[in-house]
Amino acid sequence: MLFPELDTPCIVIDDEIVERNLAQYQDYCDRHDLRLRPHIKTHKLPEMALRQLALGAVGITCQKIGEAEVFAEAGCRDILLTFNIVGTQKLTRLRRLAERVVLRVVADNEVVARALSGAFSDRSLEVLVECDTGAGRCGVQAPDAAAELAMLLDSLPGTRFGGLMTYPPQFAEAAVDDWLRLARDACRASGLNVETVSSGGTPSMWRAHRASVVTEHRSGTYIYNDRSLMHRATCVERDCALAVLTTVVSRPTGDRVVVDAGSKALTADLFGLEGYGYVREYPDACIYSLSEEHGCIDMRGCTARPEIGERLRVIPNHVCPVTNLFDEVHIHRRGAVTNTLAVAARGKVA
Amino acid sequence: MLFPELDTPCIVIDDEIVERNLAQYQDYCDRHDLRLRPHIKTHKLPEMALRQLALGAVGITCQKIGEAEVFAEAGCRDILLTFNIVGTQKLTRLRRLAERVVLRVVADNEVVARALSGAFSDRSLEVLVECDTGAGRCGVQAPDAAAELAMLLDSLPGTRFGGLMTYPPQFAEAAVDDWLRLARDACRASGLNVETVSSGGTPSMWRAHRASVVTEHRSGTYIYNDRSLMHRATCVERDCALAVLTTVVSRPTGDRVVVDAGSKALTADLFGLEGYGYVREYPDACIYSLSEEHGCIDMRGCTARPEIGERLRVIPNHVCPVTNLFDEVHIHRRGAVTNTLAVAARGKVA
Repeated sequence: MLFPELDTPCIVIDDEIVERNLAQYQDYCDRHDLRLRPHIKTHKLPEMALRQLALGAVGITCQKIGEAEVFAEAGCRDILLTFNIVGTQKLTRLRRLAERVVLRVVADNEVVARALSGAFSDRSLEVLVECDTGAGRCGVQAPDAAAELAMLLDSLPGTRFGGLMTYPPQFAEAAVDDWLRLARDACRASGLNVETVSSGGTPSMWRAHRASVVTEHRSGTYIYNDRSLMHRATCVERDCALAVLTTVVSRPTGDRVVVDAGSKALTADLFGLEGYGYVREYPDACIYSLSEEHGCIDMRGCTARPEIGERLRVIPNHVCPVTNLFDEVHIHRRGAVTNTLAVAARGKVA
Repeated sequence: MLFPELDTPCIVIDDEIVERNLAQYQDYCDRHDLRLRPHIKTHKLPEMALRQLALGAVGITCQKIGEAEVFAEAGCRDILLTFNIVGTQKLTRLRRLAERVVLRVVADNEVVARALSGAFSDRSLEVLVECDTGAGRCGVQAPDAAAELAMLLDSLPGTRFGGLMTYPPQFAEAAVDDWLRLARDACRASGLNVETVSSGGTPSMWRAHRASVVTEHRSGTYIYNDRSLMHRATCVERDCALAVLTTVVSRPTGDRVVVDAGSKALTADLFGLEGYGYVREYPDACIYSLSEEHGCIDMRGCTARPEIGERLRVIPNHVCPVTNLFDEVHIHRRGAVTNTLAVAARGKVA
């Protein structure tokens, strides 16, 4: 039986794969002269961030102040917050955070820029301009608008323009490079120094060097990988470090198997795929339906059938929201649990 | 501004609506001579379970031992665990739990029945036979099979047959009634007493009495309601007690608004609907895309546009997994926060 000492569902993480994933991508960034700034949203574990920093990461990326607070407490000294900070509660916490770490934030509009300026008027906060280079989320819409906001940040008290930041569309490095180069040059033409050009994403992580204007890459999922990255050929199965360990609790029909991992363990994230995860022991099985505590698996593609009580390892479609569902994760080496870590930044929504 | 004292995203719960929802459905069950056994997965709050019991609920329903442990600790004395219990860790915990409360569990197969018997050989555990009446999840597949498993439970040491349990297909009361009646009669024909016939679900909660063989109804979502129930006409907007409070952080284009509630606050659950939630302040807005921390809203259907910093209340598609994402919830009366409760049974996956 897999991991007999653990109750299910739970998260098991293969430490040898983590080690290899971290080293390989740090090496890639080093070879391409890219600064690596891992996104901690994937693991939410200070222990993993410290390993990434020890390997050569220049700092970490967080989305939420609550996450940054946890990692600052654990000793991370250089944090980029890639989210517009809005509201008095958050600005108060941001000021406190800025006293403890080298902190940079982003802005994509004048309201946010002026609020940051107001909150930091007696000091100096470095702000990157977020650019929408095609992903269609946050960000200024054109290179000229980036330069305009950069000028504003440069002129306001309390803020200092630090460069450009984007969450880019994946596998579109040439277009992203063009966009950011135009924005950088427009900033330079206005007399501004563009110290950092920060891009990110794991799906096209092995092509990050093709956007040559980029100085820094933010990647999160590369530490564990997941089924969506297998499907995009960013990784293969043996690169997937994290699995949800689950137990077969029912076999109502010859072809239907029910496990104790539902959407409360795997999330409802389809991520464009068919089925809710990859069953390592039965690669042709399809997790076709989830309720909160049940996962229904269609075994018709498989020759064998699992017994009730058998344990399966499921590689989630998207690993980041899965770690947000568990209070702890189990680290193992070749199937022997070596450590159990509290997911310190789980549930830090604000 | 809505709830200026709170940081976003967070959960706000209108206590007057909760009060009305609880009273109305208890009243319905009383009128139809149905025992109400609320499912705690929706709120995960002992405080709410105690209110449900005070109004007349006969006990509570849990899916996981970890949930049951929390509610037992809080004083709930009658718990039905509607999930096949598999594995030595869980059986050990189940024995401890059975010492503290009136506990009943379910089984849908012989392996589970025999394991329960083994774990409880020196005492007596009441077990209901789970029936698949068409929902296609767990459960024996035919009324005769239900009677067969009931006989086994009756004959094994340690277990006692307590009745039938199903999570039924919704809006199919006649078929469910037929199925359960055949199973009940088959059990009776074998000389067994069928004390309880337990069914559940909120979508067709107002039709529960139509399956007249059913003695007990398990409903969870009725306490808060949600967008999926609005769409099924089980409730209307003013019956929805829970909203995710979120802040507009960006307006990248004239029609796109980005809020600070993503899948880490709303879940990726589409539940067959278009969009990831209902924006109370802009009913014609569509939350068309979520990443973990961003919600992208298409405002083209609306005449007005929210400002950056404006707060919105989003009714989630499916409210149960949303409460599992937050450490606490804020209770309010007419917009004034009266209490903040820790979500005591959040993350109890095992």
